[in-house]
Amino acid sequence: MNVPRDQGLGLEQVNGLFVGSEGTLGIVTEATPKLAVLPKRYSVAVVPFPTIHNAVPAATAVIRTGVPVAALELMDETQMRIVNEGGMTRPRVWPEKPTLFFKFGGSNATLAETIGRVRQITEARRAEGFEFARDDREQALLWSARKESLYSLLALRKDGGKMLNTDVAVPLSKLADIIVASKKDAAALGLNACVKGHVGDGNFHENITYDASKPDEVEKAQAAVERMVQRAIDMEGTCTGEHGIGFGKKKALQLELRDETISFMKLLKGTIDPHWIMNPGKVVVR
Amino acid sequence: MNVPRDQGLGLEQVNGLFVGSEGTLGIVTEATPKLAVLPKRYSVAVVPFPTIHNAVPAATAVIRTGVPVAALELMDETQMRIVNEGGMTRPRVWPEKPTLFFKFGGSNATLAETIGRVRQITEARRAEGFEFARDDREQALLWSARKESLYSLLALRKDGGKMLNTDVAVPLSKLADIIVASKKDAAALGLNACVKGHVGDGNFHENITYDASKPDEVEKAQAAVERMVQRAIDMEGTCTGEHGIGFGKKKALQLELRDETISFMKLLKGTIDPHWIMNPGKVVVR
Repeated sequence: MNVPRDQGLGLEQVNGLFVGSEGTLGIVTEATPKLAVLPKRYSVAVVPFPTIHNAVPAATAVIRTGVPVAALELMDETQMRIVNEGGMTRPRVWPEKPTLFFKFGGSNATLAETIGRVRQITEARRAEGFEFARDDREQALLWSARKESLYSLLALRKDGGKMLNTDVAVPLSKLADIIVASKKDAAALGLNACVKGHVGDGNFHENITYDASKPDEVEKAQAAVERMVQRAIDMEGTCTGEHGIGFGKKKALQLELRDETISFMKLLKGTIDPHWIMNPGKVVVR
Repeated sequence: MNVPRDQGLGLEQVNGLFVGSEGTLGIVTEATPKLAVLPKRYSVAVVPFPTIHNAVPAATAVIRTGVPVAALELMDETQMRIVNEGGMTRPRVWPEKPTLFFKFGGSNATLAETIGRVRQITEARRAEGFEFARDDREQALLWSARKESLYSLLALRKDGGKMLNTDVAVPLSKLADIIVASKKDAAALGLNACVKGHVGDGNFHENITYDASKPDEVEKAQAAVERMVQRAIDMEGTCTGEHGIGFGKKKALQLELRDETISFMKLLKGTIDPHWIMNPGKVVVR
């Protein structure tokens, strides 16, 4: 059917439905963005911790103070080592520790206050340093490890090397536990895996590099993902925080939702796209 | 049909759809709230202006600086006079001018900075005063006019007196124009009307008091509302910002949306509630 294009009530109420449908309900041909005000200034802070179980609670504590955080990223010790090995941020060498990357936005006074409070909170959770950027150059430098993390990983792949980049999300109170359990599991399977997370949202990513020409490596990588998903669902989380269902997580979706929910999704799909022609095979199938 | 109760994907994507359906798609029996962090402190500022065309642009300018505003309310000179007459905030007597009410939240440093910037912005737009609360008692006092505005109005009703409390919303850039035009229109019709607005959202309310036993007053009140709605739609706004469609604005909804949108809404309604038994007669009818 022809999806209506009005401003206002009709479409606003189905925004979430269409965006979350991953293209299975229709094609967005026109969008009106809502603009946000840019902060006057940004700053960045980088804070290494001895363990994930120090870093994640520190992140949660910062979120709970309500200080304005524009981004809050976690990278584990393996990811930090890979950034060092990749050498893209040279001559800078990073502590190979679970590390939080903060981006703050605001006025000068707000920034100074925020940085002070975050330093206090992280120090109380055994932070092993606290570097913050005093200008744009330092900001770019401190953010570079986060920025280069994916490329550093990709650079490590050998011939036939593939990477699974998968995500789940859990309540903040469970985040440290699921990260540690998933890292242990991957290590026990003998996989090359590292973790980074948008920890303010309870969302984290595991990057698994494996050799696609070896069936047992493929199998192990898939097993690691399946177990991570099951763990997230057991913790009242979700099988994907931002990467979506697509083809790869259709089974995971069935684990997460009750049959009635899947039926409801199919009912809406069949109503809006009666011939099931939109992004076929994704999310749910007939 | 049985609406599913899972956490996660299924329901999150239909949140907007169900909330915006005004009960026409089903009954919400369970909800998981997302908590927000309370600011450390609040403060309130009250700022009168010579005209609506000074007050609204001042409000818009404050929003556009991105300072954290917890509430931003406008009350017109008529509403301020009615608060004085109602006497519920005595011994306090308010300037009978279009007045902005700000509520700010944040830390001490943020509040001090915010109040300074808002004072600067409003002074540049001919503010005729700037009072801000130094403690909780002053805060309650300054907010009291906003709090008592509806009750002051209700207290004015005589026997047979009714009140229409209706709202529309328009892009911020059009807000001053529609308020002034709607006030003029109501005055030309000889109606008792006053305006208050949640001006940060481009949303405002007109309160019209009339005698329900006099058919010509009823007719005039309805005409004023219909014309205000048409004006909002002409300005790319919406026929209601927060009060909803219900019974009263079903015609207005048809003015606002294209036929295809209404058909789409009916299609969803008929799919989810095939017997049309949920909140019957509201928003759209078969």
